[in-house]
This record gives sequence, structure tokens and C-alpha cells, in this order.
Amino acid sequence: MSTLRTPRPAGYKHPFLEAALGRAPERPPVWIMRQAGRYLPDYRRVRKSFPSFLEFCRTPDAVAEVTVQPVDQIGVDAAILFSDILVLLPPMGLNLEFVEGEGPVVHNPARDAATIAAMPGGKDGDDINAELAYVFEGIRRTQQNLQGYVPLIGFAGGPFTVASYMVEGGSSKELARLKALMFSDAKTYHLLLTKLSNLTAAYLIEQARSGANALTLMDSWAGYLSPADYRAFVLPHTKSVVDRVKAACPGVPVIHYANGAPTLLNDFVSLGVNVVGLDWRVELPDAFKAHPAQVFQGNLDPTFLFSTPEKITERVKQMKQVVGSRPHVWNLGHGILPQTPVENARAFVDAVHGAL
Amino acid sequence: MSTLRTPRPAGYKHPFLEAALGRAPERPPVWIMRQAGRYLPDYRRVRKSFPSFLEFCRTPDAVAEVTVQPVDQIGVDAAILFSDILVLLPPMGLNLEFVEGEGPVVHNPARDAATIAAMPGGKDGDDINAELAYVFEGIRRTQQNLQGYVPLIGFAGGPFTVASYMVEGGSSKELARLKALMFSDAKTYHLLLTKLSNLTAAYLIEQARSGANALTLMDSWAGYLSPADYRAFVLPHTKSVVDRVKAACPGVPVIHYANGAPTLLNDFVSLGVNVVGLDWRVELPDAFKAHPAQVFQGNLDPTFLFSTPEKITERVKQMKQVVGSRPHVWNLGHGILPQTPVENARAFVDAVHGAL
Repeated sequence: MSTLRTPRPAGYKHPFLEAALGRAPERPPVWIMRQAGRYLPDYRRVRKSFPSFLEFCRTPDAVAEVTVQPVDQIGVDAAILFSDILVLLPPMGLNLEFVEGEGPVVHNPARDAATIAAMPGGKDGDDINAELAYVFEGIRRTQQNLQGYVPLIGFAGGPFTVASYMVEGGSSKELARLKALMFSDAKTYHLLLTKLSNLTAAYLIEQARSGANALTLMDSWAGYLSPADYRAFVLPHTKSVVDRVKAACPGVPVIHYANGAPTLLNDFVSLGVNVVGLDWRVELPDAFKAHPAQVFQGNLDPTFLFSTPEKITERVKQMKQVVGSRPHVWNLGHGILPQTPVENARAFVDAVHGAL
Repeated sequence: MSTLRTPRPAGYKHPFLEAALGRAPERPPVWIMRQAGRYLPDYRRVRKSFPSFLEFCRTPDAVAEVTVQPVDQIGVDAAILFSDILVLLPPMGLNLEFVEGEGPVVHNPARDAATIAAMPGGKDGDDINAELAYVFEGIRRTQQNLQGYVPLIGFAGGPFTVASYMVEGGSSKELARLKALMFSDAKTYHLLLTKLSNLTAAYLIEQARSGANALTLMDSWAGYLSPADYRAFVLPHTKSVVDRVKAACPGVPVIHYANGAPTLLNDFVSLGVNVVGLDWRVELPDAFKAHPAQVFQGNLDPTFLFSTPEKITERVKQMKQVVGSRPHVWNLGHGILPQTPVENARAFVDAVHGAL
């Protein structure tokens, strides 16, 4: 069930890049968050050959292999580099482990002022890119595989979301420790976020220089905050990343994504990114009406892919009526779930590409 | 540190009930979701004397004791019955256990049409109240303790939220199984929700008849759905509960609460409840402006109670400027977290009661 990668003609305008840059694409482009992932049997096969998730992430050839899998097997219009938002943590001195069935665990979380003060990232220009060389090599090898067939998206976590894992020590239902730090010791909190912003900007810029054609900032947990707190504690840091990346990489579209944050929509638009990712809690007509000039990405509920190809096709058709002729980057509203049937992911992509 | 419960004068107008019914209270009323809970040392002491959480819930004297603790120790203006939204599950044939450190586990989740068809609740009027007699007895004993000092709130889970535990088998990050059922077998899904609506309406009505002065419907996970899916799959069931409760219990205010659902605000208002609970993701001025006649409840971020009494007082003062003279039920935007310092919970209550 793999797509034949016919070479693109010279001067081909990739629908994903066209839409991301606000121009009318020749067909609606679609990619899927976590498209290189556990729902694909071929991904699981490669994953199994590594003793740990981090070692997998650190092996450029394996990264290049799984990054391209969904392009061939699902037919998406962009590849997204297989990696993790937490690869910054080890170079920052944190002992990160991905524990089977539990997720990321940080064995020495950063919770006090002294630990945070001692971390790298204090100066703008300070970076940890030498220790992340495997990521940039993964980008180069993926581009050798892709040969211009589809664009490659690089990514990093938003400073707030990455900080949550550093402070909580792993995934968290409430972000209670991070928010306790924020509300009780704002100075230390802002120091951590400033360092993360510096490192993240340098990291994303180097991804673009290594060949990434677009960049996504995944601030998945921004929706845990009230709008006022988001504006005081997160927006300035995210904006500083976006501004530096856009200044250093003109022409490389930047996508911002957050989950469960519909009341922050105006704030995300104010970041000045090319594409604002939406989860399924936002109604597309509302977002389109409020921000006529903003390109959006999304936003089918990932659990809808547990229904049937027929129902998926029907729902995409309804969404297409809403999108109309707007440039739009089709995607799910959050990452694809591991239990998703591959044929249903393919039905989603085909429905986006299909006629109304 | 306990409040002296001075008897109320005859005809005393309880601020909580006044505000909930849309009238101007003599002072701003406040209660806290999960106020009878793990952050209180006296609660933990009582909890320890029971081998299981369910046995604790099933012991009316213990329920009455911990329900009143926050009234005396924190100074809230309403008590909420200590119980759990999942007490309906055992009478429905599900083997429910609260596992230490893990939360609720359903050992025989209800996932297929035959299991769901065999459950009670099929007819309007069908109820499981005989098996929930301990809840009603807990209400009567609590009222004996309170002697009219503050009103007592009864509660149940929203049918969608309760269904999530029944289908998922416990807490869930994605509600993937419930939503898979919803999107792939709508008939079975609606049968389950209809049964839960019938049982929940009968259960809440019996709570009011046993002496509850107000009722809360906690549909905590409604925010997992897109607005269109909420309207198709949840709203009619919730509305049927609200309509029956309001018809059977005139004068008993009904509160609806959901977490992480700011885009469903208009829908919650359309339920016709007396009070719509807000989490902290909603900006109060926006809610007030959109719905001038609706009483709201909330909405301080529970993690803000990890700051200091001074900062809490300051933030409540800012919120009071926004609330102005509107009838408003003060609360957190979600349940109080177990790690919360008791003195900070008290600072919140005092700040609400204090002068601007």
C-alpha cells in the first residue's frame, strides 16, 4: 500500500508550503501530528530494534526511515521529522528516560532556583546544538530520502510545555509544580523560560539551516493556563522564539500548535506565525470569521479515526464546505492515537485530497 | 482553627442560595470543589479508618463528619456532600474499585451492546436508589450536624462523564474508547447515556427529597468534545436530567460544572440551570458580557492556591472588581488539589468574604 514517489517537476509548488504561506494550493494539503508513530506496523518494527526510545531518536538513519513512512504509506503532503520535544533535556543536564507504558520520566527534575540558574541557555546565542547534532543529521538524511517529494517539517516544544516536563519530572495531569513555581517564584520561572526560549530558537534555526522546510512549535500544554496568566507567563517567551526564528529563516513557515486552548486563539494569532494549529474544540467557522487573514491548521478529533472510512469521508466533506477556498493546512486536532487503524488514517488523507 | 457555628436567625437568607437563585446576597458566597478532601488533615484521619474509599463513602456518619469539616475549618458558605460521582456504578453491575495512587478502576467495563442493554435504567422512572440509600442517609445526618448553618449541596456526575469511566474502565487521557463507541455505534452509546440520564435524574431528585438544598451536575469531561459533537451526543442527555430535576424540585438551584470546555459556554447556558460553573480558562468579563442574566460560579485556578495568602488576597481583589455587584458563586475553577496548604484555602475564602 505504498505511494509511488514520482519525481516532482521543476518549480513544483508544494501544496503544504503554498497553504502555509497563505497562497492557494493546487490541492488541499494534509499532514497528521504524530504521523510517524505507533499506529504504523513498520514504525513499530523499527522501534523494536532499539533498546530505548532515546537511542532510536539519536539514530539518523532510523529517523530518516520512519519520517518517510507516512509519506509512502498514508500519502500525506509533508513529512515531520521523527523526534521528541524533550531531546533538549539531556544537554540541559536532566536525566531523561522514556519508560515503557509510562512515558517520559526526568530522574532529576529542575525545581529550585540554584539548579535552574546553573543550566545552559542564559545568553541569547548560547546553544546546545552541538549535542543535538544527531537531529540535524536526521534532517539531512531524511531530505536525501525524500528528494524533494514533499517538504520536511522540523519542530520543537514550546518553552512552557518543555518546562512542564523539566519541573514536574514527567507527564502531569495538573502541571501543579510548574504552576506553583510560576505563582510563587516568578523570577525563577521566567529564568527557566528565558533559557528555554534561547535554546529553542537556536535549535529551530539550526533545523532550518540543516534543511527543514517548515517549523512547528508544539506548545501542547498552553491550554492549562487562564488567558491572563498565559499572557503574563508564556506569550512573551513564545513570541521571542517566533521572532528570532522568523528573522533568521525568512520564507520558512512557522506553525504554532496548542491543545485545549480555545480561549487563547487571539493570543496565538498575535504571535505572527504563518499557521495557527487548532484542536477540535474550536469551531472552524468561528476561527475563520474572527481571523480572516490567518491560515489555520486542523482540526478533526483524532478519535473520529476510530469510526469507519465512510464516516470519515463524510465528515471531511462537511469540513470542506466550511473551509471553502481558504488556504488551510488539514490535520487532526491533536496527535494520531496509537490504536488508530491505518486504513482510517489513509481514508482521512484521501478524503482531504478527494473531490467534494 | 474552627469557626464557631452561631445559630442563624429565623428567616436567614443564605448567601450561597441567594446568589445561586440570582438574587443579591448579603455577602459574596464561596465554596470549593472537593473542599472535603485530602488537603485537610482531619479528612485524612477519617479516611485512614476505612479499608477502602467506597466503604468510607458508604458510611453515613463518616460522610456527615467530613462534609462539615470545611465549613468549620475553612469557613465556606455551603457544604457539599462527601461522595463520588461513580457510586452509581456498582448498582449498575460494574465492579468498581478505588486503587491507591491510581484512582477508580472498573474491572468489568461496559463496552459492548449486550452488556449495556442488560443494565438497569432503561425506563424513565427506573432507578437504583434503593442501593444508594446510604447516600440519602448521609444527607440526612449531615443536615442534623449542620442544623441550618449553611446549605448542603448534593451532586451527581454528568451522564457523559460517568459513561467515560464505565467504558474506559477508569480515568483516561483521551476518552478514546468512549468516543470510539460514540462515533462508531451511536445507538449503543445513546442507550447507555439514556440509562444514565434516567438513573441520574432519579438519584438527584431523591437527594433533594432527603434534604439537599442545591444540586450540582459535574460533567467534568464534557470539554473533550467538539461543540458540534457535544450538541449531538451529550447536551440532550444532560438537558433531560436538568429538566426532570427542575420539574421535580422547584426552588432547589442546580449548578452545572464542566472542566476545559470554554467553547461550550453557550450550550451550558442553554441548559437552563441556575448556575454555570466556569474553569479558569474562561475570562469572567467575557462570560458576563455574553450572558448578562446567567449566574456563574468560579473560577480561580486551583494551582494559584500554591502561592501565598497575600497573593491570593490580591488576586481575589482583582476578581472582585470584575464581578462587581453581580450575584456570583465564588469557587475555584476545578477541584482543590491535595497538596494545597490549608491556610491558603482559608485565605481564599477570607479574601472573598473580605472588603475590597
